[in-house]
Amino acid sequence: MNSTQIVSLVKIFAKLPGLGPRSAQRIVLHLLKKRHELLRPLIDSLQNADEALKSCTHCYNLDTNDPCYICNDPKRHDLQTICVVEDVSDLWAMERAQVFKGVYHVLGGTLSAMNGHGPDHLNIAPLIERAKHCHEIILALNATIDGQTTTHYLMDLLKPYCQTITTLAYGMPIGGELDYLDSGTLNAALKSRTMM
Amino acid sequence: MNSTQIVSLVKIFAKLPGLGPRSAQRIVLHLLKKRHELLRPLIDSLQNADEALKSCTHCYNLDTNDPCYICNDPKRHDLQTICVVEDVSDLWAMERAQVFKGVYHVLGGTLSAMNGHGPDHLNIAPLIERAKHCHEIILALNATIDGQTTTHYLMDLLKPYCQTITTLAYGMPIGGELDYLDSGTLNAALKSRTMM
Repeated sequence: MNSTQIVSLVKIFAKLPGLGPRSAQRIVLHLLKKRHELLRPLIDSLQNADEALKSCTHCYNLDTNDPCYICNDPKRHDLQTICVVEDVSDLWAMERAQVFKGVYHVLGGTLSAMNGHGPDHLNIAPLIERAKHCHEIILALNATIDGQTTTHYLMDLLKPYCQTITTLAYGMPIGGELDYLDSGTLNAALKSRTMM
Repeated sequence: MNSTQIVSLVKIFAKLPGLGPRSAQRIVLHLLKKRHELLRPLIDSLQNADEALKSCTHCYNLDTNDPCYICNDPKRHDLQTICVVEDVSDLWAMERAQVFKGVYHVLGGTLSAMNGHGPDHLNIAPLIERAKHCHEIILALNATIDGQTTTHYLMDLLKPYCQTITTLAYGMPIGGELDYLDSGTLNAALKSRTMM
């Protein structure tokens, strides 16, 4: 495959999460075979997204408007509760569940010694500003080591500004079977057992 | 995620081979986070590829030139041997191995009853034309059921036009261990055993 166009296209696709050189090559060939049905709509769609989408200056969600559709939603009565999530995809997961009527703050990742991501990499300074004017901050970061490290870091940092700081409960997932749970989850579920 | 731009972009990515809604969503978010490093280079690269690449009218390879760099290569002394492959990626695999000095014919797939692909879906008519003026046709299709069906179909079809029609040998892959070989491969390797 000596066409520079194919080589450079495969190189870019191979950088996307979950793809390697082989799968990238397969995708590029598929696109070049289906130019009308896939390649050109993809180009248009990427251009539209690039032009239209921006980061919300309040919560760092991605949207065509700033403030975004969540910060601007008149049906969200609880603007005093801020749910802190790692990424826009986590915000989407919360919204799919339709259980939260407050607003969000997208952190943009976690602290990570491994990847050299310190507090400066995250949207922490604006979170402190928002914390000064809210009733509750829910730290809904992932239950990974980096997520939990970041949760503890934020807890200490935000305590002076906001009285109520909570995290999501740890325990058995709904539909989960004891036999298949890891010991960490079982431990958390036992520790946080509730009265019937 | 109610932005139509994101939804339509995720839908297109989810149609690419090997990707589903979840991996597509992950890729789209990654692209939107890295606009300068990834999203815009990807748009440019897709546009370049779309504009520059065409199908070779001789062998159906993808290239910026027609005839393609292989059909046009003065170093290829053996223009009378045509290697028939299913797809451009198979041509690339042959070229990587650097063992073939003839020319190719990309069939564009295989016959497939499952997918309703008949002979009209493939570049067979031009192959017959080329067969009339060549010394040998190597049918290098995949060793799958559809690939082998197509091989037998082409064998019957091309026999009147070309005396020498060959296929790749079946047997143990180099570096393979008997213990890990399927019985079909072992059977083929035993049947085609050679004198030492």
